Amino acid sequence: MKRAVSYNDVAAFVSMPLSSNNTEEDSSSEEESESKSFPMKKLAIVMVGLPARGKTHIARYIARYLNWVGRATRVFNVGNYRREILGASQPAEFFDPSNQEGRRARWELAIKCLDDLILWLKHQHGQVGIYDATNSTKERRKYVKERLETESIRVLFLESVCEDKSIIEHNIMETKLRMPDYQNMDPERAVEDFQARIANYERANETIDDDEMVSYIKIINVGRTIMLHQLTGYLQGKLVSYLMNMHTLSRSIYLTRHGESEYNAEERLGGDPDLTEKGKRFAIKLAQYIHEEFTAQGKELPLIWTSQLRRSRHTVQFIPTHNVCWRALNEINAGVCEGKTLEEVKQQFPKLYEARLKDKLHFRYPGGESYVDVIQRLEPVMLEVERMREPMLIVSHNAVIRAIYGFLIGKRQDECPNLEVPLHVVIKLTPRAYGCEETRIELNVEDNETVDGSRLDSKLNTRCTKPPKQVFF
Amino acid sequence: MKRAVSYNDVAAFVSMPLSSNNTEEDSSSEEESESKSFPMKKLAIVMVGLPARGKTHIARYIARYLNWVGRATRVFNVGNYRREILGASQPAEFFDPSNQEGRRARWELAIKCLDDLILWLKHQHGQVGIYDATNSTKERRKYVKERLETESIRVLFLESVCEDKSIIEHNIMETKLRMPDYQNMDPERAVEDFQARIANYERANETIDDDEMVSYIKIINVGRTIMLHQLTGYLQGKLVSYLMNMHTLSRSIYLTRHGESEYNAEERLGGDPDLTEKGKRFAIKLAQYIHEEFTAQGKELPLIWTSQLRRSRHTVQFIPTHNVCWRALNEINAGVCEGKTLEEVKQQFPKLYEARLKDKLHFRYPGGESYVDVIQRLEPVMLEVERMREPMLIVSHNAVIRAIYGFLIGKRQDECPNLEVPLHVVIKLTPRAYGCEETRIELNVEDNETVDGSRLDSKLNTRCTKPPKQVFF
Repeated sequence: MKRAVSYNDVAAFVSMPLSSNNTEEDSSSEEESESKSFPMKKLAIVMVGLPARGKTHIARYIARYLNWVGRATRVFNVGNYRREILGASQPAEFFDPSNQEGRRARWELAIKCLDDLILWLKHQHGQVGIYDATNSTKERRKYVKERLETESIRVLFLESVCEDKSIIEHNIMETKLRMPDYQNMDPERAVEDFQARIANYERANETIDDDEMVSYIKIINVGRTIMLHQLTGYLQGKLVSYLMNMHTLSRSIYLTRHGESEYNAEERLGGDPDLTEKGKRFAIKLAQYIHEEFTAQGKELPLIWTSQLRRSRHTVQFIPTHNVCWRALNEINAGVCEGKTLEEVKQQFPKLYEARLKDKLHFRYPGGESYVDVIQRLEPVMLEVERMREPMLIVSHNAVIRAIYGFLIGKRQDECPNLEVPLHVVIKLTPRAYGCEETRIELNVEDNETVDGSRLDSKLNTRCTKPPKQVFF
Repeated sequence: MKRAVSYNDVAAFVSMPLSSNNTEEDSSSEEESESKSFPMKKLAIVMVGLPARGKTHIARYIARYLNWVGRATRVFNVGNYRREILGASQPAEFFDPSNQEGRRARWELAIKCLDDLILWLKHQHGQVGIYDATNSTKERRKYVKERLETESIRVLFLESVCEDKSIIEHNIMETKLRMPDYQNMDPERAVEDFQARIANYERANETIDDDEMVSYIKIINVGRTIMLHQLTGYLQGKLVSYLMNMHTLSRSIYLTRHGESEYNAEERLGGDPDLTEKGKRFAIKLAQYIHEEFTAQGKELPLIWTSQLRRSRHTVQFIPTHNVCWRALNEINAGVCEGKTLEEVKQQFPKLYEARLKDKLHFRYPGGESYVDVIQRLEPVMLEVERMREPMLIVSHNAVIRAIYGFLIGKRQDECPNLEVPLHVVIKLTPRAYGCEETRIELNVEDNETVDGSRLDSKLNTRCTKPPKQVFF
């Protein structure tokens, strides 16, 4: 039965157009009954590492990614249990391994947290549970592994090792002092206390070794080196790709839809219309905003990515730098409904219209795409977004920006199609250690407003002679 | 300019339905002119490791995989240059580092081979060149790296390290003794000579370390552990996923199309028809063949994978074991042409018919798929095929079996749509160190032949009561 696991992993990622091909006769009831007798094996990712090694950050990022690609994932953080149950302010002595009482209390919390993880995976439709605790001794890991395997849950250990002192100190300053544990403490004393806490763990610390006979990933010095041991499978491969590209720099990402297009004005779907006059005024305002945010502050302009559609490319025409035009950022393909108004769709294809309302995530326009398709084609692009260390501006379309925005703020797939992303608003996102900071900048253009763009050059008129230019992929 | 690299990597993997969305106005000429000023950066994968560490095997597998996903990849093997230019039978002393003449000769060959790799990448449309040589000293690697970087080629080192003596010995016996170098030598003397050759390399061997400031992948003990250093990017992530699942066991894979279906008989595309009487007789013969190959020889039955379509599932109905039904193994979706004969397509959609003849690889049925789409959705399944260590039987459809067969025998994407895969033939493939062994078993059923299946139980009649059963993904 063990094999079944990976099949499920793969099946979850395989996307195909719905077709008349589907087995009608006997498959649906069969599929249902089979899925009961052949359940998917759940996965627990068990974090390992001393405090201030970025475990919580990594756990949260993995959860965000897996939820977005459609796998129900949740982080179970033992520290939160401690804070909730025992209160936030426990002194370093509490973490001293020779303190019997502290040890017992921490053990009980760890067990309670693990119990909840198992409960969630086994009875609450969870697919991946991330157990976020130090798990820094062999004994503890052995216990956790046996406990999970008894429940038929696959186990993957994920250790963060950091040999670079400066990274650890930066980590403490950046994240730990903002923890509830130190809310009312003098920063200097807090750092001291936290380092004492780490020292207590260090005394008993054992890094994972091959004798433990487990699958593991070791992330060394914030991903500069990654070690994989006895790791196979499709989901695991995706996880590694993601970890390879992850970094902890906090640079801002600016998202916006294109300016108003001729189709927006008529409420038509898809197509490749140009901007209206109003949309063009937004393009000018956007260039001015980007100038304020970057050039005026002596910063280099951000990376600029657009779709390959005219309304998106033309929205960045006044920003004096290259922009990269991605086909993968094109709007959801509405197939037979391209160029139609929603009213026309309702009249001409009433069944489609209803099906879309019923399940916007999975509904696929005949000859076109669904939101799931869009997310799938965006996945490699999002890995690239993760990898880039510079600020970036992404100008794309309603469905696509929803999916990207959903990824960055940690939404599940099914939440993406209903996120609010109006025209003429820039969403500025800055990832922080414990969440994503969001600002919305309204650059609304009134119908009869005039915007002075006389000092801005358009790339569209200059592109053949010199940069800035547009690059297509 | 460095960033451009990864954009290209990603763009190559993004697949979307063709749409009316495409930019018409100005994009095509622009794209062309841009692609000249923004060229794709080429990648060289430089193998590192002592002889008999599986370098050539790994290089060949990577090339096969990358070619199949559409990246022009070629292996440049220094050993072949030596054999071709100096002749195969050089004694171990030739490889002694204190032998000046041998050293110079080997150096010149290595340079010649590297020159050819660069030529291919820069002027012959190559995208990934794999430099297969020992490259076992820091000095040599430094030279190779600088040489490639001067030519604006990205460099990734891939080292195979093996600490397990038994694996090395097995490797020597399995592959090296079949090398042209030892064609006319007594095996015992050959092993001795080869071990002396390794000893000569070992004296000067230096494993890659972090001071060399290079991106590298280290494969330790045939993939049990994999180390990644300074590795980011989408293509790199795919490569790692692939390496994680690769193994060197040689178990057979049996491929066949389903038995003749009602649509085959009428020459119709797609749909979900059942088997004809003739097709059912093939199912019986297939079960008998699998019995002969496995059960009769005391072997366990193979893993059985089918599509979710009736004709494929019913083809394995007489084989008494589970079968897994993959949606990703379903036939290419012919969209608007589903259920039509080729003659009808020609009459009703003459333009489609012509477009398909012109470029069968990229032609996408409106509302359906292209071969490129099929290959993309098969990719995760092929990683699973690589991962499995048991023999397997895959029963699927014309386009899908072509793509899988193309992968296993190392064809490029564009060669897949024209591979010959007739009905009622089993293709047995057994991967060997230096290639893939192929046998075709014709199980042809004559029109008026009777096949005795009276002793076989059909799963279709028994499935609700007990295994064997069918499992859906």
